[in-house]
Amino acid sequence: MRTRHFSKSTEIINNCDFLLTEPQEKYFPNDNPIHLEIGMGKGQFIIQIAINNPDINFIGVEKYDTIMARAIQKASEYKLPNLLFLREDAINLEKYFHERINVIYLNFSDPWPKKRHKSRRLTYSSFLDIYNKLLIDHKKIYIKTDSDLLFSSSLIELNNYGAIFNEISFDLKNANIDNVLTEYEEKFSKKGNKIYYLDCSLKRNDK
Amino acid sequence: MRTRHFSKSTEIINNCDFLLTEPQEKYFPNDNPIHLEIGMGKGQFIIQIAINNPDINFIGVEKYDTIMARAIQKASEYKLPNLLFLREDAINLEKYFHERINVIYLNFSDPWPKKRHKSRRLTYSSFLDIYNKLLIDHKKIYIKTDSDLLFSSSLIELNNYGAIFNEISFDLKNANIDNVLTEYEEKFSKKGNKIYYLDCSLKRNDK
Repeated sequence: MRTRHFSKSTEIINNCDFLLTEPQEKYFPNDNPIHLEIGMGKGQFIIQIAINNPDINFIGVEKYDTIMARAIQKASEYKLPNLLFLREDAINLEKYFHERINVIYLNFSDPWPKKRHKSRRLTYSSFLDIYNKLLIDHKKIYIKTDSDLLFSSSLIELNNYGAIFNEISFDLKNANIDNVLTEYEEKFSKKGNKIYYLDCSLKRNDK
Repeated sequence: MRTRHFSKSTEIINNCDFLLTEPQEKYFPNDNPIHLEIGMGKGQFIIQIAINNPDINFIGVEKYDTIMARAIQKASEYKLPNLLFLREDAINLEKYFHERINVIYLNFSDPWPKKRHKSRRLTYSSFLDIYNKLLIDHKKIYIKTDSDLLFSSSLIELNNYGAIFNEISFDLKNANIDNVLTEYEEKFSKKGNKIYYLDCSLKRNDK
């Protein structure tokens, strides 16, 4: 079963015509800003936000084959000219997007709760270094999470990195913020649980 | 009744021998560090922390007469050589404590929820300017609050002021942090509500 499952994912991935497989000089036929979601899961958020914003280009990054295959299936229903996917680890993004990204979304990233794993959190300083190299203009990063631990450690990492905080909410559902739900968030919010939200800008002189 | 109530407060305040009434060259007979609580309410927190830490000097600031009188009554039971009170508005603290304070506590400060009142919040940038002038060494500020709004605006103000965040908790009661309860916090925590906590250091080049 496991093999068949992987095979099907591989087939879907191999047949996808909006999946990046290597760095390119130009990803979209226009010069609209590019927004990146790192760890897009099954893609509900980035597909919806791409539908809502045809004048922005979106790229969804996901490292797991099986999850990427689900996102591809969902996105195939819409044929969005402003949406691309990339199956890649966050650590390798610089070769694709050096100084080409306007906004990064980190939605419900793995909190890696054990202290010895904290360097794997997507807001750890080594990842901020990567984002800093990808981002241009205001270097915006938007974070949503339900994890106390990931949110507090993200605030500390970003603060110590010199980021500017624009907006914080401890209860996004009841905040006056335009919000597109992820699949996880939809389930989670229905239970009445609270979502943390940060809108910040990386601003830091390069070494 | 109201007049009598005020009269009694005034009498208690006038008879208090550990209440500062004007700036002095030396506030304590030793050179131990001085910690300041701004808005100490009825004093439960600062009295307890002064009992627990005889090698640190503490000054509790409160601007309201009637509340100050209650704090004086409570503190009088202990006769603590390392505790002084000051009835004063936060805005006037520089003339008392310029570069003489090691730590500031802001516990359950008034959140001033209306946007037009935000400059009254004790973490508004104009107050941070004052604290920056009072504080020396690591310029530590500890904040506890149950207010979403005050906590998010404090994080934003302090971050953008250049403060360094050392520790954040969204549920202080269950965090691994040594904590002395305020009277408000005691009641509030019993209901199962969560307390926000920030440990930060002001670090900023003076203009």
